[in-house]
Amino acid sequence: MIATGFLERVVDIVGGPFVLQDAAAVAPYGADALKQPHAPDLVALPGSTQEISSLATLCDELRVPMVVRGAGTGYTGGAVPIRGGIVLSLERLNQILEIDPVNLLARVQPNVITGQLQDAVERVGLFYPPDPASLQQSSIGGNVAECAGGPRAFKYGTTKRYVLALEAVLPTGEIVHTGSKAVKNVVGYDLTQLLVGSEGTLAIITEIILRLVPKPPAQRTVRAAFSSIEAAVTAVTNLIQLRVVPAAIELVDQHSLDALRAHSGTSLAPEGAAAALIVEVDGSKKAADEELDLVDQACRAAGGVDVQRAVTDADRDAIWQLRRELSPALKRIASIKLNNDVVVPRGRVPQLFELVARLRQESRLPIACFGHAGDGNIHVNIMVPEAERARLDDAMNRARAAERQLFEGVVALEGSISGEHGIGFTKAPYLGLELSPSEIALMKRVKAAFDPHGILNPGKIFPDGQAG
Amino acid sequence: MIATGFLERVVDIVGGPFVLQDAAAVAPYGADALKQPHAPDLVALPGSTQEISSLATLCDELRVPMVVRGAGTGYTGGAVPIRGGIVLSLERLNQILEIDPVNLLARVQPNVITGQLQDAVERVGLFYPPDPASLQQSSIGGNVAECAGGPRAFKYGTTKRYVLALEAVLPTGEIVHTGSKAVKNVVGYDLTQLLVGSEGTLAIITEIILRLVPKPPAQRTVRAAFSSIEAAVTAVTNLIQLRVVPAAIELVDQHSLDALRAHSGTSLAPEGAAAALIVEVDGSKKAADEELDLVDQACRAAGGVDVQRAVTDADRDAIWQLRRELSPALKRIASIKLNNDVVVPRGRVPQLFELVARLRQESRLPIACFGHAGDGNIHVNIMVPEAERARLDDAMNRARAAERQLFEGVVALEGSISGEHGIGFTKAPYLGLELSPSEIALMKRVKAAFDPHGILNPGKIFPDGQAG
Repeated sequence: MIATGFLERVVDIVGGPFVLQDAAAVAPYGADALKQPHAPDLVALPGSTQEISSLATLCDELRVPMVVRGAGTGYTGGAVPIRGGIVLSLERLNQILEIDPVNLLARVQPNVITGQLQDAVERVGLFYPPDPASLQQSSIGGNVAECAGGPRAFKYGTTKRYVLALEAVLPTGEIVHTGSKAVKNVVGYDLTQLLVGSEGTLAIITEIILRLVPKPPAQRTVRAAFSSIEAAVTAVTNLIQLRVVPAAIELVDQHSLDALRAHSGTSLAPEGAAAALIVEVDGSKKAADEELDLVDQACRAAGGVDVQRAVTDADRDAIWQLRRELSPALKRIASIKLNNDVVVPRGRVPQLFELVARLRQESRLPIACFGHAGDGNIHVNIMVPEAERARLDDAMNRARAAERQLFEGVVALEGSISGEHGIGFTKAPYLGLELSPSEIALMKRVKAAFDPHGILNPGKIFPDGQAG
Repeated sequence: MIATGFLERVVDIVGGPFVLQDAAAVAPYGADALKQPHAPDLVALPGSTQEISSLATLCDELRVPMVVRGAGTGYTGGAVPIRGGIVLSLERLNQILEIDPVNLLARVQPNVITGQLQDAVERVGLFYPPDPASLQQSSIGGNVAECAGGPRAFKYGTTKRYVLALEAVLPTGEIVHTGSKAVKNVVGYDLTQLLVGSEGTLAIITEIILRLVPKPPAQRTVRAAFSSIEAAVTAVTNLIQLRVVPAAIELVDQHSLDALRAHSGTSLAPEGAAAALIVEVDGSKKAADEELDLVDQACRAAGGVDVQRAVTDADRDAIWQLRRELSPALKRIASIKLNNDVVVPRGRVPQLFELVARLRQESRLPIACFGHAGDGNIHVNIMVPEAERARLDDAMNRARAAERQLFEGVVALEGSISGEHGIGFTKAPYLGLELSPSEIALMKRVKAAFDPHGILNPGKIFPDGQAG
């Protein structure tokens, strides 16, 4: 599979202790959170940008597939070496190099864990807003490669808003720098933003300069229950009419609320509620208190009941802890779960839920939804419960059919098939639902501009598995 | 210069009344705000995306240079057809197609004037934040092509933060759509952000979907005078330590203050002040008032004097009107003015001013600075006054030498040679000061992925004038 002499040259570059080749040693490097593993032929743990450059030059010369791995928490198989080859695990590049409170910057290596970065900057009064659910496990490099989002994206935007500059190694070995420490930069093409969300297919990100913001002094959180999805969405519309820009607006549907109750013994809304909203505002203490009143008012005006305000950290943490338990709660119902992060214009969330109700009926499968209502970004979990194990193929076919209809539906609603998780290889067959042949061909030409021999993370994003 | 039969085919596509060929008619299409004109051979005023696609196909086939023009307010010659060929003026594509207050979106044609779009969305309680000084003249398409900024970028970011989706025509004629109406979208590469700021060299933008935000209910403005640039920058650092995120933080140096006084009979600070700051905060009335106090406190703590608060619209307008008069005031001193929009990490603004002081001495030319201190984005105006007319060549040489040293200096300070105006053709010779040969080569490959025959806006961005 791999050219003669390749192993020896990899050992020469990174050193013997940093090359793994036993089946047992490489196996963990073949999977991510998607759990559809494919073992690599070899794993290298480079310790520097220069070593990565040498590895890329070698792989390009010998046409060996090369897949970059961060913390392996992705949901679409972005880090899975489906064509074999070598995995470059960046686990040794895990240092925060610089936190600069005067210039509101952090300079980090890719395998810093996002939550640890947040803690470090908050200790000096700064704030790195993106907060994917995986933040205690996922690496900042992976967040950049996938353009991770999270609840706070409504006010603060996703990862891309915070990436100012990158050091990256091209698949052909050149080390390039994109952007600068300046917060505005229009010098040449914006390759920084092109690399953010490129799912490890264009270049290997080796250093990241992030923009930070001052930490908002106060947070306040409201949760409210509603008798319909429409009512919850009306509350969000009311909020916007009141000119409130909450940090987070999370929506949880009845199926998710029920699963949470079964799992945790408690939930985010009383039994029978069709939906719950969690709204968090932040700013100065006065501003946050003022907005808290407006959120309360907006929820009640839309028919919200059981409206609860959380002002203390403990009360807020309790709400967010329940929010984070949604995913484990659903896993208890069904270990097989197609987790889709579709996104529609916010006002069309009720139409998305109508579509989901129809798919639930047609597929005869439980489908539970929760997500970022402010962004119209809803995680639609199509589940195959244990009871379906006896006729698993049939159930999986129904699940896949529902998934395809979901994707077609969100595109018809002028949305996108992925708001956060990316395409990887699981969604690659559906790319053509959203993009035209001309658009896909253009993206492949961009891919070829970075990776002329198609060695970097092959088989990802593009429908035919070919890039270039 | 242009192939036989080209004119007839252009007339076939857009119709005779929309083709200009007289020298007098085409001349105004050869210049932008840079005032280094170059007349095109032909001007077409297409009326639809389809016509633009047909024109591109034709130009690509016949290898005719094609330059897209919006309102022609750029400072670096981005819209100037320096290689001749055809100018596509998008002046007929000037409609606001949709303002969607539920989904916080606007869909517009490229030649909508930015200020008119702002007025239209503000009438329905929404807000489009980017505010380049030219907003009453410049078109939103030009703003997107250049990634325009403005004072409000500190809090709200530049144009790129608001562009969700584009319809664009490739130089080879294909019509493509990038992004979607969803505020999050990680489906394939982010071509939207790649096109923003690409200076009309990658594709012809024919429709734009913009993200809007709720209009902040209240604004408050402070101006303060300082005895040194350092003191003014300390005030900004104080503000950030107080966790205030103003909408705008503008800095004006003594040379600009003096020019303004000579021009307008009044200024933004008392005579003798070394610097003035204008700080605007926004939000709810309570939040804005609270932040106003903090701004006042931060300015005084840094030694600010003559601290004036503007709460009424009239008082605020008076301050901003003076801010907008800075550029005309400088033009009165010197009709020749090298207007550079360099940018450094915010905390290094004092070092930038030290460099400017040295350049002022060495060049024996007046250099006046003002700009967006929160972003470290300072407009450095190197002026050639009327008194130098007698030995213009020598003065221009000194001005150019100062400009080059300025660029070298900002790169050494880890900044960028352009934060807002782009590279165009005037700054193209300096691209290599900031980007390495590998980085420039990569950008040229990206250019070729969009424009294989190099017909779209040739001679821009790249140092040798060649792209691809």
